[in-house]
Amino acid sequence: MIGRLNHVAIAVPDLEAASAQYRDTLGANVGAPQDEPDHGVTVVFIELPNTKIELLYPLGDDSPINGFLEKNPSGGIHHVCYEVDDILAARDQLVEKGARILGNGEPKIGAHGKPVLFLHPKDFQGTLVELEQV
Amino acid sequence: MIGRLNHVAIAVPDLEAASAQYRDTLGANVGAPQDEPDHGVTVVFIELPNTKIELLYPLGDDSPINGFLEKNPSGGIHHVCYEVDDILAARDQLVEKGARILGNGEPKIGAHGKPVLFLHPKDFQGTLVELEQV
Repeated sequence: MIGRLNHVAIAVPDLEAASAQYRDTLGANVGAPQDEPDHGVTVVFIELPNTKIELLYPLGDDSPINGFLEKNPSGGIHHVCYEVDDILAARDQLVEKGARILGNGEPKIGAHGKPVLFLHPKDFQGTLVELEQV
Repeated sequence: MIGRLNHVAIAVPDLEAASAQYRDTLGANVGAPQDEPDHGVTVVFIELPNTKIELLYPLGDDSPINGFLEKNPSGGIHHVCYEVDDILAARDQLVEKGARILGNGEPKIGAHGKPVLFLHPKDFQGTLVELEQV
């Protein structure tokens, strides 16, 4: 069911420092910050030849990554995102196999303007998994 | 400097359960377990169309992931691995920019038979970064 790894998301306590580290120290192709108010994050995409790294920084007091950064003040890898062809078919298949979908179980529009869902980390070895329909 | 994302490594407390979850629930292409005694891990590679997921399970009492699994009993994302063309040139450039290399600073032969180095997570937003020469 899952296809490409769309991105790896890394939550960071300082977006400018993290962007500079990837651009200047690791020599990667780092984009400009984009506010995503619907998701409570500011994101910076790092384009690698085969996938993307998504740096996440909290936007607003209700940001879903505030808790993660409280637990991991230096930052850390937050989630992986796998691509699927049909997110509703993927969801139904996962639920049938006992996996839990976060939130109300309905896809939201993600940072790339595509429908996304998040799966419960307890069902996937402590890893938060995002699915994105492409 | 960095090229492709070679893999994302996920430490897991139960390799068989994790393999089954990726194979049967997520429908991915999951390989057979391989013992890597030099690295203190048993690994399972999951082939995605554009990169790999590497499931890591401790091998032996001195496994470098024992501590991680003690802190994260359900498992979790352990590191990301970026490809470089020349690992010694990459190392020298990183050290010059103030990044710290783990261990004695000399590349070891990694799970794919290629020279690898690990960078200090404190220098990279709490993320353990592996570099692999390809």
